[in-house]
Amino acid sequence: MDIDKLKFKDNGLIPVVIQDYDDQKVLMVAYMNKEAIKLTIETGETHFYSRSRKKIWKKGETSGHVQKVKEILLDCDEDTLLIKVEQKTASCHNGYKSCFYRKIDSKGNLEIVDKKLFDPDEVYK
Amino acid sequence: MDIDKLKFKDNGLIPVVIQDYDDQKVLMVAYMNKEAIKLTIETGETHFYSRSRKKIWKKGETSGHVQKVKEILLDCDEDTLLIKVEQKTASCHNGYKSCFYRKIDSKGNLEIVDKKLFDPDEVYK
Repeated sequence: MDIDKLKFKDNGLIPVVIQDYDDQKVLMVAYMNKEAIKLTIETGETHFYSRSRKKIWKKGETSGHVQKVKEILLDCDEDTLLIKVEQKTASCHNGYKSCFYRKIDSKGNLEIVDKKLFDPDEVYK
Repeated sequence: MDIDKLKFKDNGLIPVVIQDYDDQKVLMVAYMNKEAIKLTIETGETHFYSRSRKKIWKKGETSGHVQKVKEILLDCDEDTLLIKVEQKTASCHNGYKSCFYRKIDSKGNLEIVDKKLFDPDEVYK
């Protein structure tokens, strides 16, 4: 598999789904450029490209909530990655294990369906 | 939850992760516009927006491999959806249950890790 052959978007990024290796929860979706993919493979911990800050960041660099790579999967169109990880503590900066911690119910209301595992005010001081 | 408040990209689309409700497999990632989200909620079956064909399509319209919606979840940034579905037969047009049927191994080689559940030549005649 040659990283150069992945179908990056015009902005040089590819979407990446992060899934918990143990309980199969979908934790988050973020974006990688070639450099972030290389760093992720080399270090065994996820690195992403921040579209707002326009730079590479290591997941957990502030919080310590790193993601250890267990498996990297490629989709049929070769334009999306799925990475299964061991998630330290929790994935979401709001304190939940998964960023998808809210369900949209049949009336269109949001319901929190995940447990809060840390206090963001304590972690991101 | 007001669909208009979702953070659509400049092209009017939002990425959607589709996960199997029963075995938690990540099946595919595709894109929805507002209309596709409305159709998905109204009909209880997933509809997407095709970036290449520039139109809405119903998953399974040709193959019969529809996805029945069980849960819709929203991420913290409100720019990605996770939909858990009951997948009829298989998700991938290549015949596998998941579009992520190939693993990138430590040497960078691709290894098929999913079972083929149908013959695409038979289904897409």
